Amino acid sequence: MRRLTLALDIMGGDFGPHIILPAAVSALTENPHLYFVLCGPIELLDAWFNKQNLNIQNRIQLSDCQQSVTMDESPISALRSKKDSSMRRMLDLVEQGQADGCVSAGNTGALLAMAYHVLKTLPGIHRPALISLMPTIDGGKVYLLDLGANVDCDSEVLFQYAVMGSVLAEVVGQITKPKVALLNVGVEQNKGNDRIKNTARELAETSSINYIGYVEGNDIFSQKADVIVTDGFAGNIALKSCEGLTKLVINEVKKASNQNWLNKVLAKIALPLLRNIYLRMNPDQYNGASLIGLRGIVVKSHGNASSEAFLYAIREATKEVTMQVPTKIKDKIEAVLMERH
Amino acid sequence: MRRLTLALDIMGGDFGPHIILPAAVSALTENPHLYFVLCGPIELLDAWFNKQNLNIQNRIQLSDCQQSVTMDESPISALRSKKDSSMRRMLDLVEQGQADGCVSAGNTGALLAMAYHVLKTLPGIHRPALISLMPTIDGGKVYLLDLGANVDCDSEVLFQYAVMGSVLAEVVGQITKPKVALLNVGVEQNKGNDRIKNTARELAETSSINYIGYVEGNDIFSQKADVIVTDGFAGNIALKSCEGLTKLVINEVKKASNQNWLNKVLAKIALPLLRNIYLRMNPDQYNGASLIGLRGIVVKSHGNASSEAFLYAIREATKEVTMQVPTKIKDKIEAVLMERH
Repeated sequence: MRRLTLALDIMGGDFGPHIILPAAVSALTENPHLYFVLCGPIELLDAWFNKQNLNIQNRIQLSDCQQSVTMDESPISALRSKKDSSMRRMLDLVEQGQADGCVSAGNTGALLAMAYHVLKTLPGIHRPALISLMPTIDGGKVYLLDLGANVDCDSEVLFQYAVMGSVLAEVVGQITKPKVALLNVGVEQNKGNDRIKNTARELAETSSINYIGYVEGNDIFSQKADVIVTDGFAGNIALKSCEGLTKLVINEVKKASNQNWLNKVLAKIALPLLRNIYLRMNPDQYNGASLIGLRGIVVKSHGNASSEAFLYAIREATKEVTMQVPTKIKDKIEAVLMERH
Repeated sequence: MRRLTLALDIMGGDFGPHIILPAAVSALTENPHLYFVLCGPIELLDAWFNKQNLNIQNRIQLSDCQQSVTMDESPISALRSKKDSSMRRMLDLVEQGQADGCVSAGNTGALLAMAYHVLKTLPGIHRPALISLMPTIDGGKVYLLDLGANVDCDSEVLFQYAVMGSVLAEVVGQITKPKVALLNVGVEQNKGNDRIKNTARELAETSSINYIGYVEGNDIFSQKADVIVTDGFAGNIALKSCEGLTKLVINEVKKASNQNWLNKVLAKIALPLLRNIYLRMNPDQYNGASLIGLRGIVVKSHGNASSEAFLYAIREATKEVTMQVPTKIKDKIEAVLMERH
């Protein structure tokens, strides 16, 4: 296996270097082929670096950036005025070929805007998408996209999302002929708006995509499909609604536990179970969300993530580099376009 | 209180007359001002009618219709070929002024199409909306619309939905100056598509609507707003995703309960609690969803509803008649249009 370099934004997220640096050390320990470029203020990195052992020092480069993007900064402000930020540097390194991919736990909106600006989309792809794994009822997983990169998607963008999701499920998720579905308000052919109907028609005519038709919101968790495609508006609403509902359920269980001793016992067992579902509901907290469709690999870890969650995101980026996801997406979209014309 | 007549589609839903007729009897028993026109096959109704006591017989009229709309029938087919159906008759009676409102547990798509065709929208309203109450984290409630009547809504339709939701929350929900919010992918002003931004601008300029800004999917359950407005696509996806997630949680608890005796005890207590949340998540099963914006009152009970749930839907229709919801919506939209121009 060849040497694999990831750039990390060590200032991103609510806890910045406190959770990211330990995750980096764990990742280097478990994968001897991995190298990092750590982007952040040199004075902070130097002190930490000097305490590491030689094997770790040999596989780390430091890239000094004195700015950082705050969690509540607007994408436009970050794009314009944070050219020396750790987030921007990480993307610049990928663009210049000095890193094979990058991981950040920072401001999602800023990351989307910067990544799109710096890396640009692959040929044949109009817009990048944010994609992540959701849990399903039988302990399985489903790829859901777009989770909020683009609130307005025409049928061509939705079609491209279907192709990209299918590639990720196949090459990273190791699913043979992944079943691809469109999220809709009903499963009948006449359901939905023109945009979705057009996408459905195009997908049905594309033999290299295993398109299975429409699924409804409740099917997200049903394992009917391996990849579910929707626009960034509906995807974000679905994800956040479920997050809100899980909080509601946790709250109800807590309330019930105050009613009597039996319920108190119940809550002790039920709450960890529910919290676990809550974490899985919050997918970038669990295993990172990927920004796909770009000429480079960008993985987003949750702003509030633990070291373990950031380590998951590093592993995801590593897999995407190894499997050459951008090249595979480019090849697939070319093949699909050839088939269409 | 004056005499109040509702038309009921006794053939709608998975169980038709078996749950609807008992609900009708309960409703007549609890409300002495209530009268029904029962729409369905006369041979079925006659047999049942003759077994009722005189007080009930006096307050019931039978309307013979030999067709019924099936649960999987397409809206277009129902509209074209089911003119003698119980669903269509019930709407015709409202249109002709022979009933003050109507209730059906039948095919939602067919009901939407027929109601729109027969009753037409109120002056100033472009499209009807499906609205229902959702539970919130502190035991409160929030009105969510549109739940699937219109998948494509321009900013004018969204604006009208905000007005209609506000009226329903005020006159039926008894909330003074209901807080109205738009569902979006973020709370910042620059978030969302042009449609939503335009609606937000219009609402902010309308003093007679208590518009509070954007809320995200997780806020549906947070009690931040009394009325949350979105298009029928996102509303349906939010609702169904939550339904699917609740099933997932119930399943996880069941699985855990098979692991050891303590979890078995836990499941005995947790499952009824979760089932209750599931019912509340499935709002038309709980208390009916209303189709508003039409020149008549139409309440939809869930296809799979119990007699109790159908009784809730009858109560909801009764309240809307008493509070003259269509007139109030008409007045409010007129006032708002006056303010705008």
